[in-house]
Amino acid sequence: MSSKAIGEDEVSASKYLTVLFAPSVDQTEEMVKTAVSQNRTLFIIGRCRVNYHGRARSKLGSGERILIIKGDGSLLVHRSLGYEPVNWMPGGKVLFDVRSKDNTLEIRAVRQRPHETVSVIFDRIQLVSSFVLDDSGEFSLYASEEDMQKAILLRPSLLEEGFKPITYEKKVEPGFIDVYGEDKNGKLVVVEIKRKTAKKEAALQLAKYIEAIHSKANREVRGILVAPNIAKNVQRALVTLGLEYKCLDPRKCAEILTKSATKKLGEYFSS
Amino acid sequence: MSSKAIGEDEVSASKYLTVLFAPSVDQTEEMVKTAVSQNRTLFIIGRCRVNYHGRARSKLGSGERILIIKGDGSLLVHRSLGYEPVNWMPGGKVLFDVRSKDNTLEIRAVRQRPHETVSVIFDRIQLVSSFVLDDSGEFSLYASEEDMQKAILLRPSLLEEGFKPITYEKKVEPGFIDVYGEDKNGKLVVVEIKRKTAKKEAALQLAKYIEAIHSKANREVRGILVAPNIAKNVQRALVTLGLEYKCLDPRKCAEILTKSATKKLGEYFSS
Repeated sequence: MSSKAIGEDEVSASKYLTVLFAPSVDQTEEMVKTAVSQNRTLFIIGRCRVNYHGRARSKLGSGERILIIKGDGSLLVHRSLGYEPVNWMPGGKVLFDVRSKDNTLEIRAVRQRPHETVSVIFDRIQLVSSFVLDDSGEFSLYASEEDMQKAILLRPSLLEEGFKPITYEKKVEPGFIDVYGEDKNGKLVVVEIKRKTAKKEAALQLAKYIEAIHSKANREVRGILVAPNIAKNVQRALVTLGLEYKCLDPRKCAEILTKSATKKLGEYFSS
Repeated sequence: MSSKAIGEDEVSASKYLTVLFAPSVDQTEEMVKTAVSQNRTLFIIGRCRVNYHGRARSKLGSGERILIIKGDGSLLVHRSLGYEPVNWMPGGKVLFDVRSKDNTLEIRAVRQRPHETVSVIFDRIQLVSSFVLDDSGEFSLYASEEDMQKAILLRPSLLEEGFKPITYEKKVEPGFIDVYGEDKNGKLVVVEIKRKTAKKEAALQLAKYIEAIHSKANREVRGILVAPNIAKNVQRALVTLGLEYKCLDPRKCAEILTKSATKKLGEYFSS
């Protein structure tokens, strides 16, 4: 990035959005202090070094990056590639210390519990913007029955401790078994999944699967109906049919899948 | 945020940094297309909705947010609070489809393997900036001996499968044992940790700890020296003293601690 951008020293400001191009260290210092004290969102593009001390320790050499500080004190340093920040700190009780010295600007964020410190030292700033985001939109996370199935395969203890999946979408005479496995005592387990309130049909379907399995394997077979909740008459049907119910929230499954993907993908991050 | 910012319709551009204030949908469309095709980093502040389909499905209602798209296709949507993006997608083979319609701008990112789609639909844009970050700085992650200790306590299999920590910083006559536990066969284990190349002194220290433990507990005691590597003469000393060596990289420990913190902190995120 050039140190000279067209529009250098230009200032655009409103109550809601303020922008400085290629500002001096002093100009930036003032703007950062104001933004932090007013819990505004702050965005800086510039050349910096970063030191972190907390969960571990890290040093990031000089280079151009994005720094974002949010109103709750959350801090993110992003490099030119990758979806993960190279340095970050959650918000909460974060104290900021902003000071200029020898033509550099140090933004130091200190958090308690756990104690951690991020220090970002800029020696050239391309752009600073501070703004207020008006956002009351609702975030909804959904999971399909397939997602619930994947989550159980990924983390079988969601069903119960000691459960070991053998296969999924197992073809039997009346259809496909969502998840098929063994419990900790070696009993076969047939799992039927519903993402909404399970109705009587689901219990009857599960009973048919068990019958089909039973006719081939001369072993004890348990049937478990998995759903976020069950219709009133279903509990009685389950008892009559000798089946069980396991309450599982599709949202929880979605979160597990999301986190799992993050974790796997995250592994390339610091390697 | 106001829809009118001072400097509205103002354009600042250089080869390295381009900024538009309160641009029209058409202006933004053009700039986003250029940025994406040239693998520039893109930053947008505006009012949008977001739909995601992939690891799970999610919908985010209308509100003002930050959108970042990097040169590798990584995409992040950030709200006003929290260090975690509300929606994100890793980079790699990502195809972008950018189109305006009925005064809204849809930026659609589609990724294969795993298949996922993020669609960000803006109906008001406050600021768009695209830029190139010149960044070759090196990132170094360090862990202290304490971090290595924490990582072993958090994930005992780092030492060996079946290891169960009993305590740490256990006081014995010659000093403090870093980690103290039992192996899968019920033998006591004394662990001495070094974050750099372990020298002979470390092996001798470990031998003293074992002697101290042995004098009190009439059980078999194993001694394990944990370090990223050992000095040449140490391997022989270990054999002579009946001790073992476990190679462990402090960086790996730091990553585990970092990820662990992320995971725990991440749990509040979608709840």
